[in-house]
Amino acid sequence: MGTGQLATLIMQGFAGPVYPVHPSEEKVLGLTAYKSIADVPEVPDLVVMVLPTRIVPGLLADCGEVGVRAAIVVSGGFREVGGAGFDLERELVDVCRKYDITMIGPNCIGVSNFNIGLNTTYFPYEQEPGGLTVISQSGTYSCHIYGHTKRTGIRLSHTVSVGNSAVVDLSDCLEHFAADESTRSIALYIEGIPDGEKFMRAARIAVERKPVVALYVGGTGAGARAGMSHTGALAGDDAIYDGMLRQLGIRRADSIEDLLDWTWAQSTQPRAPGKRLAVLTNAGGPAASMADTANRLGLEVPVLSEGLQAKLREFLPPTAATVNPVDITFLLNFESLYEGIPRTLLGSDEVDGIVMYGVFGSLLFNTIQKALGDRISYRVEDMIPIYTRLLAQFSKFPAEYGKPVLVSSFWGRDDDALAFLADNGIPVYPSPERAVKAFAALT
Amino acid sequence: MGTGQLATLIMQGFAGPVYPVHPSEEKVLGLTAYKSIADVPEVPDLVVMVLPTRIVPGLLADCGEVGVRAAIVVSGGFREVGGAGFDLERELVDVCRKYDITMIGPNCIGVSNFNIGLNTTYFPYEQEPGGLTVISQSGTYSCHIYGHTKRTGIRLSHTVSVGNSAVVDLSDCLEHFAADESTRSIALYIEGIPDGEKFMRAARIAVERKPVVALYVGGTGAGARAGMSHTGALAGDDAIYDGMLRQLGIRRADSIEDLLDWTWAQSTQPRAPGKRLAVLTNAGGPAASMADTANRLGLEVPVLSEGLQAKLREFLPPTAATVNPVDITFLLNFESLYEGIPRTLLGSDEVDGIVMYGVFGSLLFNTIQKALGDRISYRVEDMIPIYTRLLAQFSKFPAEYGKPVLVSSFWGRDDDALAFLADNGIPVYPSPERAVKAFAALT
Repeated sequence: MGTGQLATLIMQGFAGPVYPVHPSEEKVLGLTAYKSIADVPEVPDLVVMVLPTRIVPGLLADCGEVGVRAAIVVSGGFREVGGAGFDLERELVDVCRKYDITMIGPNCIGVSNFNIGLNTTYFPYEQEPGGLTVISQSGTYSCHIYGHTKRTGIRLSHTVSVGNSAVVDLSDCLEHFAADESTRSIALYIEGIPDGEKFMRAARIAVERKPVVALYVGGTGAGARAGMSHTGALAGDDAIYDGMLRQLGIRRADSIEDLLDWTWAQSTQPRAPGKRLAVLTNAGGPAASMADTANRLGLEVPVLSEGLQAKLREFLPPTAATVNPVDITFLLNFESLYEGIPRTLLGSDEVDGIVMYGVFGSLLFNTIQKALGDRISYRVEDMIPIYTRLLAQFSKFPAEYGKPVLVSSFWGRDDDALAFLADNGIPVYPSPERAVKAFAALT
Repeated sequence: MGTGQLATLIMQGFAGPVYPVHPSEEKVLGLTAYKSIADVPEVPDLVVMVLPTRIVPGLLADCGEVGVRAAIVVSGGFREVGGAGFDLERELVDVCRKYDITMIGPNCIGVSNFNIGLNTTYFPYEQEPGGLTVISQSGTYSCHIYGHTKRTGIRLSHTVSVGNSAVVDLSDCLEHFAADESTRSIALYIEGIPDGEKFMRAARIAVERKPVVALYVGGTGAGARAGMSHTGALAGDDAIYDGMLRQLGIRRADSIEDLLDWTWAQSTQPRAPGKRLAVLTNAGGPAASMADTANRLGLEVPVLSEGLQAKLREFLPPTAATVNPVDITFLLNFESLYEGIPRTLLGSDEVDGIVMYGVFGSLLFNTIQKALGDRISYRVEDMIPIYTRLLAQFSKFPAEYGKPVLVSSFWGRDDDALAFLADNGIPVYPSPERAVKAFAALT
């Protein structure tokens, strides 16, 4: 596992020097290896330890001796296994105290900071850095999610797997990332918080500065049992956590998808000034789903004024619906769709943002062109620069109008227009309802 | 739009003769076109009409005159626009009565039967046929979902967009597909059901034979308004629909994703004999999420007996958890993971099925191999046949043990092992919680 994590670190393009330490190998992954921490030519800023459990405390003390002040301990076999594991973890904490070492773990995957290409997990993150930071009591949710972010286009700032939290815990991380400039929203995965007061102090600081969403899984019998054997987390009554999160202004997600969906919107979009949603669509089913979901979540889908509807009709065919949902039907006028209509909606004082279904780039048109060849009156190659220019402008509307714009589609990044939007700060959700749920998280 | 739909029909590989009818073109998409239905050399089994609204009734009568008995009317502008649209739709129904024409629509996208390559929508379905049939009051949800099914691996049998339901309605389709051999589960998208008694009669027949799930979006003010302008659907009180569906034994989905997730499981998996779930995982976070979600949905995650845990430990490293969730941790023994452990769980009388996280095929190992080159002791090429053989066997366990097996992963079809499972009848969900929700739909 350590070799895999080192491989990720190299692949992720971390620019600083990396020194493998290994008792017998001369080289590890092409890098010169050192027999012990004392042999390393400089004092590293961070040590990552992937070692048999019983030798970890001693070797961490060796690190402390040479002046190391930060460590990630990946090795498991401490508190989470009970018995002698408790004693070993106490020993580890004593070493940290003695040498003033800030330690993440043990029993964690590590830390990623994509702004500097640091990734100590064993999965590469193959995207640009973004504004969403994940603080997690699960290592999986700090790195397996790179599969999810790649497929959706969510961009991450940092991920931290806190593991057993023997020294640094979730609350410390929350307070840290409250002050981190690159972090625009924070996602928490919680199995159990032993020190509630500390968490509340950190959370109050964080929510003042940026949106925080939490997924808490310890509130059922099976969830608590799973957390206990996982990171030794002590879970608590679901209603207590629910009330605490609500009082703190931390929105609670029911699933990892919701957690990442909502913080994606929060890391890219302005807060919605109110609860009035414009539903913009070229498809009736998604329009009805989005409208229905909005109402169920307490959002309004206001009937638009006659004046505003008249303005919208200038851009629309007579079969279109303008009342809200605004259903443009089968309209291929990109200027209307990506400029005229959204500007008219966002510029009015009748709605607080847009949730949209119906962006189609070259995927659909290529299919048509492939089938129809010369028989169609356009070439996809000619269309791409037109809609791309309009989408570039469209993706700036949230900042320009101070109102969020979210998109949904069943195609996602398979389509170039949708990938373009996601890469330019407009979240694209894989279903209509998820876009609306994410909008609710912006209110 | 008609040309696009014809293109899809050709691309989908429909084997029967197709006759374009066009007043002026000699050829359409390379096929000889006919000036009128009377000129077509034989009486077609089905006519698809994409025409200006006002000429539809007259041309449908022409079809009736030559002996056509089935029609799909795609054109909109009928009941859903109100006013004169009502009269035109009544005229259309009179034509159908006079000539005994079974008509789908108007204001619909059409019908797909993937068993015979029939697809009259304007999106190609690029997969093998499967067991899930979608009956929808939204055209979008009858064909845009091909983007969703392609990305997930859900396989469809039929999709029907009923449109305004002037002659054939959702209830007729439900009764029809109750008797259809290739349909193993049915997904309904409902905006409003005018004839409740007819629906209940059809539903009682259907649920006797196969699972049915419904998404109803008309139960809120905005949802009802959207449905009205979409297909002229008359929505009703949410609680009435909720109670009706519950009484009929039709599970109600909250979103299009749930609707397709659940019916995917139902179209490929046996019903669960009970509510006791084994959570099998190599990752603690998903284990806790799955266990917690299971309890919230009323599923049990039973503590396994000492005897069963002892049997499981034979396949597992000492750090693994066997209590349930069964967390294998970092284990790369494919025989244990895909054969020994699942057989031990499914063969016991302590659980009614498995939800699993932690299938990794060549995607991860290729990444490692690419990074580590000769320094690793295995070659991915050598591993693929081993795990593929085991997965082929694994995918037969549900039938062998009469218990469902569902998988979740953040990578989905990007990974060959996960694509293999989905293509061999094991649903692979994009998040842990969705797999558990789908399991609940099998109880």
